[in-house]
Amino acid sequence: MTSITAKKPAMRLNELTATEIVSAIADGKTTCEAVARACLDRIAAREPQVQAWQYLNSEQVIARARALDKSGRRGPLLGVPFGIKDIIDTCDMPTEYGSPIYKDHQPKNDAACVALGRKAGGILMGKTVTTEFANLTPGKTRNPFDPARTPGGSSSGSAAAVGDNMVPLAIGTQTTGSTIRPASFCGAFAYRPTYADLRCSGVREVAGSLDTLGLVTRSIEDIALYRDVLLGIEPQPLPAESGVPRIGFCRTHLWPILEPYTRQLLEDAVENLARAGAKVVDLTLPSEFESIEDAHRWISSFEFARNFTWEIDSHWEQIGERVREGRIKDGLSCSFERYIESRSFAEKCRAMFSDVFGDCDVLLAASAVGEAPIGLHSTGNVRPSAIWTTMHVPVVTLPVFKGPNGLPVGAQLVARRSDDRRLFAAARWVYGQLV
Amino acid sequence: MTSITAKKPAMRLNELTATEIVSAIADGKTTCEAVARACLDRIAAREPQVQAWQYLNSEQVIARARALDKSGRRGPLLGVPFGIKDIIDTCDMPTEYGSPIYKDHQPKNDAACVALGRKAGGILMGKTVTTEFANLTPGKTRNPFDPARTPGGSSSGSAAAVGDNMVPLAIGTQTTGSTIRPASFCGAFAYRPTYADLRCSGVREVAGSLDTLGLVTRSIEDIALYRDVLLGIEPQPLPAESGVPRIGFCRTHLWPILEPYTRQLLEDAVENLARAGAKVVDLTLPSEFESIEDAHRWISSFEFARNFTWEIDSHWEQIGERVREGRIKDGLSCSFERYIESRSFAEKCRAMFSDVFGDCDVLLAASAVGEAPIGLHSTGNVRPSAIWTTMHVPVVTLPVFKGPNGLPVGAQLVARRSDDRRLFAAARWVYGQLV
Repeated sequence: MTSITAKKPAMRLNELTATEIVSAIADGKTTCEAVARACLDRIAAREPQVQAWQYLNSEQVIARARALDKSGRRGPLLGVPFGIKDIIDTCDMPTEYGSPIYKDHQPKNDAACVALGRKAGGILMGKTVTTEFANLTPGKTRNPFDPARTPGGSSSGSAAAVGDNMVPLAIGTQTTGSTIRPASFCGAFAYRPTYADLRCSGVREVAGSLDTLGLVTRSIEDIALYRDVLLGIEPQPLPAESGVPRIGFCRTHLWPILEPYTRQLLEDAVENLARAGAKVVDLTLPSEFESIEDAHRWISSFEFARNFTWEIDSHWEQIGERVREGRIKDGLSCSFERYIESRSFAEKCRAMFSDVFGDCDVLLAASAVGEAPIGLHSTGNVRPSAIWTTMHVPVVTLPVFKGPNGLPVGAQLVARRSDDRRLFAAARWVYGQLV
Repeated sequence: MTSITAKKPAMRLNELTATEIVSAIADGKTTCEAVARACLDRIAAREPQVQAWQYLNSEQVIARARALDKSGRRGPLLGVPFGIKDIIDTCDMPTEYGSPIYKDHQPKNDAACVALGRKAGGILMGKTVTTEFANLTPGKTRNPFDPARTPGGSSSGSAAAVGDNMVPLAIGTQTTGSTIRPASFCGAFAYRPTYADLRCSGVREVAGSLDTLGLVTRSIEDIALYRDVLLGIEPQPLPAESGVPRIGFCRTHLWPILEPYTRQLLEDAVENLARAGAKVVDLTLPSEFESIEDAHRWISSFEFARNFTWEIDSHWEQIGERVREGRIKDGLSCSFERYIESRSFAEKCRAMFSDVFGDCDVLLAASAVGEAPIGLHSTGNVRPSAIWTTMHVPVVTLPVFKGPNGLPVGAQLVARRSDDRRLFAAARWVYGQLV
């Protein structure tokens, strides 16, 4: 620990990335316990304002950290504190799915993603706040940069905890924009993987045809590391050099709904990237893609309304009005024919999507319409992510912009399906140019 | 009840189909309680030999039946007893996933498919036996036609319970051939739906890229009815007339592994169907399709080994040797590259598959290599279903043959993706010709 603070006087243990923590512990420069305590201290100081945590048990965390220090074991996440969205089951912590129906509910086992993180030596710090059933009704979390503003959602606590340096890693989920948007609002990196790559066993299903995990971190290297851990494979560092990416600037038909400053920030970024040597081209999506949001709406609501049949039938009065009047009403009104048409339409667009890239490696787009809006009654506009989510492609958001109030605004990069590692390489280069 | 026994002297209430039960109750000819009692009586008489049930609580069943009788409510499954494979969560019955790790485990909520069945007025009778984690290690169930033989698996109890007239409907799951094979061995109808149509929320994930529910019934009409209930839509009866189907007889490269009598039964069936007016053509799959089993192996084992990380890490010694040495060893030895190659290969074949049908409505193939084999140490050869499962297409098995020992052998019909109702119409016609 001494040498770290010596090298980076302003850097505290809770501000390190996962990659830095792992090597500091491996080099004997700090301990699992010291890192865990630094994160717990940060949480203790900030939680009254941020309220990122649904469940936190410091003693459990310290006991696990000490056991790891004593064991002398190794692991790709050894000693790295992580948070888990409370829509994901944990064997030793309650899991409430953001709903009073599940107050104090204790699952029997860890979800696959939780167990994989622990197997790699990570320290589960606790459960981060989710909106109700990872849907619209906000939880208690506030934006770490301004408590009058939303942190975004539905992975509200995961984004706020990482953005506020409480933990270096957290898992969220995404069915529309539930990881990318809150990470953009909270100044974090985040990644939605290629659909179906990371196992969702033990994650409460919202709409299985769209759901994925979402990873929130403070660096691209950490995204690559955490992804490999959750794939259950030996982590492979990103190649040191990967060349200058070819970028398609993709305003989409949603360009008019972005805040004017977001449009300007993106336009300026494109100029900067081009000046730095990137080939950047304007890229227009086929006109069919304007209907993807509609398909997304019917797929997600049809599935949601079936998945929550038990809650609808047995606990109707404990479901929030926004979920009842929004997703459930939509889903119950949707015919099977409309659902299948929407699913087929999404598949047709997916089949076209690789060609849309032309010779680009990645697309550049907005992560959110702007800064986190004022108020805690809404988690913000979900629309900018719906197209990419429905396309089943990997995306990242990079915390590269500041809005007019000095609050974070992300830039989203989108890659072809299964091109996740090329996305990381491009993201690293883009991030390097823009900050 | 009197009028039913008057009309069909040999037919007892527990032998009725779901469709018959619903209309008998609606017409006031019997009651929910009488049907439930008839099923419970059958179970009491036969369970010592068949052992289809992991959990059964007669009092709970009778109480529910009486409540339904009193309520005067309606519903598309009103009063229909059904069984649920014990890999699927239930809020008021333990769910053990076929594993001692989950002894007496009580989930908080009903899986989507359980809640939808109950919402429709169905009576959950209990939990049917599954193999360990819906994988290879057999449970206690025996074949209802010969207790020295396997019922098949992994949906062993669901197939045995329906085949033995204990319940008219049961839900299983299928990742390879886990519903079709046991139904073939137990003389039942069964259906694997188009992938992703029926929600699996609350079903323990085995390999999410392949898993579906599987429905076991005693008629095609009941499959159509139960499917609509589980889609959460208003049931639509099958059209009265649907014409003579065009059938592709598809021996596949597995023809040599079928028992000679199974080959003969299929060849004879083809002749009979042609004589009855069906256009039947020999249909050869593209040679690539011989590699689908291999792709299936890597997809399913890679995902399985990640999904069960908690059990592998925390309860290794309580996992059966066949699961450890088979699926888990395979899955942990499989690289991510091989997994992704296998998934891409499966997708490529899926994209070709619709054209394989030519002008055929359905394919005819084997449901299993033959009769249920002797012995309870194995659930039989899984291979005949792997191709269709991996293609994500709907299939049914029809109990139309008897093998040399007088035991049931099924015929499998395969349709294009999302062509489930055309499949039912063809299956009804084929069944009508062959029995």
